[in-house]
Amino acid sequence: MSVMEDGNPDVSMVDIKHRFVTVNGVRHHVAEAGSGPPLVLLHGWPEFWATWEPIFARLASRYRLIAPDFRGFGESENSHPGPTDAVNAVTLADDIVALLDAMDIGRCGFVGHDVGSNVMQVLGVSFPARATGLFFFNCATHGVGSRWSEPGHINQIWYQSFHQMHYAAVLVASSRESCRAYIGHFLRHWSYRKDAFDAVLDRWVDNFMRPGNMQGGFNWYIGQNAGRLAVMAGTAQRPPKITVPTRVLWGRHDPILKADWADVLDQYFAEVEVSFADDAGHFVHYECPDLAAREIDRFFSRLARRKRER
Amino acid sequence: MSVMEDGNPDVSMVDIKHRFVTVNGVRHHVAEAGSGPPLVLLHGWPEFWATWEPIFARLASRYRLIAPDFRGFGESENSHPGPTDAVNAVTLADDIVALLDAMDIGRCGFVGHDVGSNVMQVLGVSFPARATGLFFFNCATHGVGSRWSEPGHINQIWYQSFHQMHYAAVLVASSRESCRAYIGHFLRHWSYRKDAFDAVLDRWVDNFMRPGNMQGGFNWYIGQNAGRLAVMAGTAQRPPKITVPTRVLWGRHDPILKADWADVLDQYFAEVEVSFADDAGHFVHYECPDLAAREIDRFFSRLARRKRER
Repeated sequence: MSVMEDGNPDVSMVDIKHRFVTVNGVRHHVAEAGSGPPLVLLHGWPEFWATWEPIFARLASRYRLIAPDFRGFGESENSHPGPTDAVNAVTLADDIVALLDAMDIGRCGFVGHDVGSNVMQVLGVSFPARATGLFFFNCATHGVGSRWSEPGHINQIWYQSFHQMHYAAVLVASSRESCRAYIGHFLRHWSYRKDAFDAVLDRWVDNFMRPGNMQGGFNWYIGQNAGRLAVMAGTAQRPPKITVPTRVLWGRHDPILKADWADVLDQYFAEVEVSFADDAGHFVHYECPDLAAREIDRFFSRLARRKRER
Repeated sequence: MSVMEDGNPDVSMVDIKHRFVTVNGVRHHVAEAGSGPPLVLLHGWPEFWATWEPIFARLASRYRLIAPDFRGFGESENSHPGPTDAVNAVTLADDIVALLDAMDIGRCGFVGHDVGSNVMQVLGVSFPARATGLFFFNCATHGVGSRWSEPGHINQIWYQSFHQMHYAAVLVASSRESCRAYIGHFLRHWSYRKDAFDAVLDRWVDNFMRPGNMQGGFNWYIGQNAGRLAVMAGTAQRPPKITVPTRVLWGRHDPILKADWADVLDQYFAEVEVSFADDAGHFVHYECPDLAAREIDRFFSRLARRKRER
């Protein structure tokens, strides 16, 4: 199967191996398939490793695909069963580097979005030697600044506050119906192709009803809060420019991470190519997996060629 | 019992009469007690008529107290069982004027806060001849402007967005436990005296578990949304100055309606006296009922004296 073929590749044809690796004192779940240059796929919220299945279906023939669940997500351990601000992008980046060490992977490509895109920015700043390239689906940077809280965006960002309420996870996970209504809302609302997750919604509900997973995801927002408020206020320190080659494919219709915010990317990445997915919102990899896989492959193939030519 | 005495007046000693009056096609519940000049008490969210019981206990000997439930709240009918933007401050002000007409009350004093304070501002602009005076506990005006969405306030206003989600009422009212966690959060978080509502929390839960009441309250936020975004953006039309004599007693520690916002009151009220309740947050009437009742009485007594002297 060529990645260039359109169609509907079946992930059940891919031999996905699951393993557990304890790093930084936390038992991490990692889904892995394929062979070739390693690509680490970093999920967002409300997601877990399975959000990368459409990419597994399309790229396992060319790459070694490694999709961990962040701590507190999916089948990874939740290091903090209750609300905590101890888990942030630095924690999660350290986990990923420790996982790579444990798996004997020196350098690899990174693909991610949402939570994963925050983690990848830390990786790009603090561990550039570990990354051949960074591929983002949508990418909110420090440069979004006060645009986060403009009146036109206020009704989008409320969940970032609500998730910090200590009763929120219990309330949302009080029943499968509540969980389905809540998680389903975000999967539909943030998608341009509204039915993208319909077929897997029950798996998503299963996942977020696993003990600890609703709070695990919400802890991301507690840990992220001080930083996001500082970004809005313009008091956050500007991070150093990331020198790792970067590709951003931004879903044109993402209501939470606006495609307009791509205008500042070159202030944060020394080498970045940006384009837009006209038929996608927040979940480009799930809404337009053919395009997503093609562009991932193009980017990392080009980097590999460039390395060989040097 | 004198209003000037401190102590703990017992509302069970007050003969509260309940009646239902249909106006504007909606069956309204009205709680009423006492005799003297009429005072209409307008509640907020998450409240209903009973939030005025501490005032009933202290002022029924001097005033005819009239506490309606807004449509969609308490025991009043919910005109729109599902989510709607059709109910706003103008709708509710029209309901109150129609109630006064039905009850043969020409002019009266108004006391209110939160939702009630928005309604009272409409009454002050559109029906000044019906009001002897306006007494506000805390009072957000058009002049709050972009302060609503400052980074330091972002984690306070999220519920105004969440309440607009079409699944929100079902989620929050999916069980008594969810309802208690959610409503209890706001009663505690917005109070400075954290235990103010502890003894009545079950009644509050009973109230918001009544079919239609969670959505009824949330519809306020849907109806209010366009206006609040325009206020934040600075595009809302400045309302004319209210000429009705006004008193604002602002709880110093209200986390949602900041006492600092009193700085613009004289731009919106031609005759306004402002002071602060140092031991209260959002619910001055419930947290510091002795102070609240004393100041209500002082204000309306002074207005009555002034009228006699003219």
